[in-house]
Amino acid sequence: MTRTTMDGMTTDEETSGVRDGVMGTEAMPVRAPETAPADLTALTDGSAAAPVTGVAEARVRRAYARIAEVDRPEVWITLLPEAAAIAAAREVDARLAAGAVLPLAGRTLAVKDNVDVAGLPTTAACPSFATDPAGRPGPARTSAPAVQALLDAGAVVLGKTNLDQFATGLVGVRSPFGAVRHATLPDRVSGGSSSGSAVAVALGIADIGIGTDTAGSGRVPAAFGALVGIKTTLGLVPTTGVVPACRNYDVVTTFTRDLDLGVVATRTMVGADPSDPARRPWPADVRLGLPSAAVVAVPRDEDLAPLSPGWRAAFRASVDAVRAVGAQVRTVDISGMLSAARLLYDGAIVAERYEAVGAFLTDAPDADPTVRSIILAGRDTPAHAYVADRARLATAKVEAAAVLDGCDLLLLPTTTEHPTIAAVQADPVAINRRLGTYTNFVNLLDMAAVAIPSGEADGGPFGVTVLSRAFDDQLALDLAARLLAHAPGDADDEPSDHLLVEAGVDVLVVGAHLRGQPLNRELTALGARFRRTVRTSDAYRLVALDTQPRKPGLVRAGSGAGAPIVGEVWRLSPGALGRMLAGLPSPMSLGQVELEDGTWVVGFGCTAESGAAGADITATGGWVEALRRGL
Amino acid sequence: MTRTTMDGMTTDEETSGVRDGVMGTEAMPVRAPETAPADLTALTDGSAAAPVTGVAEARVRRAYARIAEVDRPEVWITLLPEAAAIAAAREVDARLAAGAVLPLAGRTLAVKDNVDVAGLPTTAACPSFATDPAGRPGPARTSAPAVQALLDAGAVVLGKTNLDQFATGLVGVRSPFGAVRHATLPDRVSGGSSSGSAVAVALGIADIGIGTDTAGSGRVPAAFGALVGIKTTLGLVPTTGVVPACRNYDVVTTFTRDLDLGVVATRTMVGADPSDPARRPWPADVRLGLPSAAVVAVPRDEDLAPLSPGWRAAFRASVDAVRAVGAQVRTVDISGMLSAARLLYDGAIVAERYEAVGAFLTDAPDADPTVRSIILAGRDTPAHAYVADRARLATAKVEAAAVLDGCDLLLLPTTTEHPTIAAVQADPVAINRRLGTYTNFVNLLDMAAVAIPSGEADGGPFGVTVLSRAFDDQLALDLAARLLAHAPGDADDEPSDHLLVEAGVDVLVVGAHLRGQPLNRELTALGARFRRTVRTSDAYRLVALDTQPRKPGLVRAGSGAGAPIVGEVWRLSPGALGRMLAGLPSPMSLGQVELEDGTWVVGFGCTAESGAAGADITATGGWVEALRRGL
Repeated sequence: MTRTTMDGMTTDEETSGVRDGVMGTEAMPVRAPETAPADLTALTDGSAAAPVTGVAEARVRRAYARIAEVDRPEVWITLLPEAAAIAAAREVDARLAAGAVLPLAGRTLAVKDNVDVAGLPTTAACPSFATDPAGRPGPARTSAPAVQALLDAGAVVLGKTNLDQFATGLVGVRSPFGAVRHATLPDRVSGGSSSGSAVAVALGIADIGIGTDTAGSGRVPAAFGALVGIKTTLGLVPTTGVVPACRNYDVVTTFTRDLDLGVVATRTMVGADPSDPARRPWPADVRLGLPSAAVVAVPRDEDLAPLSPGWRAAFRASVDAVRAVGAQVRTVDISGMLSAARLLYDGAIVAERYEAVGAFLTDAPDADPTVRSIILAGRDTPAHAYVADRARLATAKVEAAAVLDGCDLLLLPTTTEHPTIAAVQADPVAINRRLGTYTNFVNLLDMAAVAIPSGEADGGPFGVTVLSRAFDDQLALDLAARLLAHAPGDADDEPSDHLLVEAGVDVLVVGAHLRGQPLNRELTALGARFRRTVRTSDAYRLVALDTQPRKPGLVRAGSGAGAPIVGEVWRLSPGALGRMLAGLPSPMSLGQVELEDGTWVVGFGCTAESGAAGADITATGGWVEALRRGL
Repeated sequence: MTRTTMDGMTTDEETSGVRDGVMGTEAMPVRAPETAPADLTALTDGSAAAPVTGVAEARVRRAYARIAEVDRPEVWITLLPEAAAIAAAREVDARLAAGAVLPLAGRTLAVKDNVDVAGLPTTAACPSFATDPAGRPGPARTSAPAVQALLDAGAVVLGKTNLDQFATGLVGVRSPFGAVRHATLPDRVSGGSSSGSAVAVALGIADIGIGTDTAGSGRVPAAFGALVGIKTTLGLVPTTGVVPACRNYDVVTTFTRDLDLGVVATRTMVGADPSDPARRPWPADVRLGLPSAAVVAVPRDEDLAPLSPGWRAAFRASVDAVRAVGAQVRTVDISGMLSAARLLYDGAIVAERYEAVGAFLTDAPDADPTVRSIILAGRDTPAHAYVADRARLATAKVEAAAVLDGCDLLLLPTTTEHPTIAAVQADPVAINRRLGTYTNFVNLLDMAAVAIPSGEADGGPFGVTVLSRAFDDQLALDLAARLLAHAPGDADDEPSDHLLVEAGVDVLVVGAHLRGQPLNRELTALGARFRRTVRTSDAYRLVALDTQPRKPGLVRAGSGAGAPIVGEVWRLSPGALGRMLAGLPSPMSLGQVELEDGTWVVGFGCTAESGAAGADITATGGWVEALRRGL
């Protein structure tokens, strides 16, 4: 373990986060990390000299105060001692003091215990898994690149959280570390498999819960916990250093109490491992923004049959909310998608679970019996059946695309109901399976998803999920943001930008492409994203061109020889920008334009010939004002 | 069968292409198509009235004359009667006469008999497969979309060709229809599995041979036949209507005697089935051209150990030819790629072959014993082993990418030697396996390949393959074209454009981006492709700008108010164009520019301010001339 991989987290014996087993697993054979970082003393000494408590340290202290307050030991499999977390926080504060830009400074992390954190064991809720002499002995040597990226951005790990063993389950009950009780309704399930991470956030302990999601494990607990759960397109966030559930369908996810923090954390993790074999970068023509007149697909009534009556009513209200934020709702038949979901457990895909941990589980003394039976069922599946099922999935993907043709997004209830722990323990498979009705198919069909809270139902939180095509993650986040901003009690009129896809080219528009003007739809059809209203420097004149529709031309006349002109900056993918340029009619042009703040962006101009021929409307300060004046 | 799917091909009893079994398979139970097209008589009558023989009919007549001349019955499994092919040709001629643009008008097709052609049986060289009562009875109802696209473009099918049964083999010997003898060295193998299609082209019968390639079946026969074999990136040409070998790794390929025809045929097939589940469109930032200073990887000497001495010497000469066309050669270690190849037959991937036809083959009376033993070996492979092998392949792909980092392409010998039929029959597995040394890994690692002839070795043709990353197919074709144009005896100084990727945006450059000028490398680094030298209309003035490096500005002054200015048109992907625009410094701009022929393309301009300040150099007619004059 080195500072490079650990980023200041300390793990020697004194500060080791390894606890005795909780909830009746006294025999938990997790070993303490064997080596301490050489600089532990230096770190501790240095932080002791700090005159004031930094932001990171303050956050970490609050987290531990909350841990003590809530008394929920089942949340954690390995909780870092407070001193160790504070030492890490102080290092973050020192980096901040040294001028580092840390978008996640002092944000506290609860990491699902199937994701490696350097120096801590990775049990996947099966203690013997972390000590398997042939396999993965003792603590992880390096952090999963996704976690490391969060640490590099200033986050501080609190510990490793409980889960449905080997991430197999949607309930949070299938763990030798005990059932994870719901944050506010302790007789009900927390949802799983990322149970501990979700509850740590729902209880206000951690800022960010790191989960994994194969069949819904990053979404169902979000619904129960009134959290935002972001499950990106497969291949964006690396799964390196994650114990696979189904290696081809696993996604590392975030739980947060608000959308923006989840987006920052997710954005930080995207692409964190350049050599990840499963890596898929953003396409060159990735869509960056949801059109204001978005089309949102919703299921037919019959597709909602598995919902409890309360959840069904709540979903109807959510659909109304989609309309209320200006989107168009279109009812579609999702029965094909729901059928595809059955391939996850009833078909050959379950062999992926066996491939991941099946050989180990065969003899593991501490395997959860339900989990063991599910995973070992994949042992004898023939490869040809798997190949055939994957081909069925490929066909189902094409069919789903056809169903969603013309729609930007799909809105679904995240799950069907909120069961009690007792009910799930009495029937460990059937309820779990029903809970996955609207989540199981999503990764199989290569879709992205954002689970958000949406009011209440049956005396607890209710949640919906916004689904998108692969790589349209930003669009799903945009609708999620509109719905959250519109939620009762939220007075935020100007939601922050929840920007997941930062790559793109900023383009200044000053005329017919402005919002409300006739060519704005060209921008939104290209997936362009509104960024801000700006003014040019005073080097520009604005002229009225002889075009159809009417457009102004921005003409650079020289510094001080014009006036600031009002415009809007939109961000486009490179591919969209190239397509826009290819379709740009004469006499318009695109080149660098100077803004009032001295920066330059790509912006609209026109030929000298047309600029010289047009009537000067510089004095209006902008095209909308010129139109208002009837010029 | 309808005209829509059949495009004029006739298949009633009188003109049925079904022959009795050849080479000792008298019992071949292939049935004649059951229905004739309703318009057969009309077609025949109409064509009889044609006063002159059209280009398509002439080509078809020549093909049948050649068929009679060469006496190679083993090439065909189903040969269309000449009258039927002529009827189809006449329909093509009628379409031409009606003004249709048919890029493949009258080009004759030999289609491997694992690819559906409407009205003809698809045997995959296993006659009982075409008559399986439970599976695929009688003739195919529709043509594979890839074939249909060729028919729509004016091609005419001659028949279905022999192959290594179920496309399993690289020799052309594993067929109950007999070993396909080499075109000019009849004691040697033709190569397989696309043996008949390759020999039909090598013998000058067909213009285009359609093959399939999983492990090298579209490349090894090209090497032996001195042909061009184009194997595109997985997912570009649809495999709908193709009997799978390994459904995740099959590619439909072309054999042609020259590169350009192969490119036209391939281009025609790309994207032919919009609902193909395996479809992968060209990325928005696809590279469209090979830089003139390309870097070409070649293997180390030890990686060439499997070659016969003659083939090894010939490969050395091919590497010299790469240098001679201006590319830089870099030696790399390809042992990892060669190892990955072993997963195709020795690992779990062979289960894909069982998935495709294994259940059928178990009881098929006419299965080739070698093919049967290979395919049935995949029956009991567990799915978890397959998942693990696919993960190994994903890692191998990352490792191969690292090996090729900094290289545009990889040059390899296509195969190792040219064995005799007798030698292969005496040892049906080992030689076949060695022949796949340099082809087996290619589809597994998601690479594209173009096999081309490259002189002679061991008394027969020698061939090399140019390999590229996925979707860099055009770059591989570009190097192939340079090598072919440079080959002794080929005096073609101006190779035609062999354009596979037509999508893109044409951009006019008039200054520092011209060939030989300092910023041209920006274009080539973006994958831009030179199209042609042009002149603008006379509406433009050229001015010398005050920039570093020095650039001219093209200023639209109005029709007749300037002079034609020399420039070059380059084609860029939308993504590349967007990136170029994002990096374009002030005062340059991009917008529509009028060319001398009255068409408009995206082209460089500059701000009015800078244009007005620059010295007028319009009289030079172009930037290069202006530089020459020292302006």
